[in-house]
Amino acid sequence: MQVDNCIFCKIVKGEIKSQKVYEDQDIVAFLDINPVNKGHVLVIPKDHFENIFDIPKDKLSKVMEVVQKVAIALKKMGADGVNIVSNNGKAAEQHVFHLHIHVIPRYYNDGKELDSMEKRTKYENDKEMNEYAERIRLFLI
Amino acid sequence: MQVDNCIFCKIVKGEIKSQKVYEDQDIVAFLDINPVNKGHVLVIPKDHFENIFDIPKDKLSKVMEVVQKVAIALKKMGADGVNIVSNNGKAAEQHVFHLHIHVIPRYYNDGKELDSMEKRTKYENDKEMNEYAERIRLFLI
Repeated sequence: MQVDNCIFCKIVKGEIKSQKVYEDQDIVAFLDINPVNKGHVLVIPKDHFENIFDIPKDKLSKVMEVVQKVAIALKKMGADGVNIVSNNGKAAEQHVFHLHIHVIPRYYNDGKELDSMEKRTKYENDKEMNEYAERIRLFLI
Repeated sequence: MQVDNCIFCKIVKGEIKSQKVYEDQDIVAFLDINPVNKGHVLVIPKDHFENIFDIPKDKLSKVMEVVQKVAIALKKMGADGVNIVSNNGKAAEQHVFHLHIHVIPRYYNDGKELDSMEKRTKYENDKEMNEYAERIRLFLI
């Protein structure tokens, strides 16, 4: 079930545009628009749970299955490593209160830091973002 | 199955001392000796898998069940938030090549950063570490 005024619920419902890389009955995965590195994916349950504290364990298990698939796809695409991060609660830097798990491709000496918003990047344009999403979709199969 | 020369396999087998907060047939959770904040727990499968890329999904699911239990226990103990982090591959800052998931209690304005080893802390002594482990065990029930 989705709730009003939640941007990730709006992404689930298609009311806000996103570059989805995966979707099934329970889960959506889409590109972070402000990625640590290009190809940075957010995996979320379609139903609205605030964070790790209130999601049922069977739903969390489904989220993690997709997290793992995305991580493996990013590695096949050439990532040297992958960070998996979930921030739960404002004190832990959670900003959108719909549970989401970051799957972040990393490269040797990329100089990135998980905490640094300044070191995040942007896609050049919609075309580049679309190309990244398309590649991830192919490697997810 | 455990492998030689893996410090987390040695923790599983009890060959290296640790403050375990949870243990079942498949999973062990224990205190990080160099925590971001005191109460920082590592959750690992007993069997040796290198990281997210090679762990079977049913085992990952079991790891995440314990991650969630620990996160909820830390919140009950007074944490304002919890970061959940898994680094996979050297390029992503994985240092021990036995899959482990960090469960990190956070507090408002604690000034911590996930990337910063400098901002990590230490337990005063074994007694304090033991007390933290004991409290988490109580809240896990």
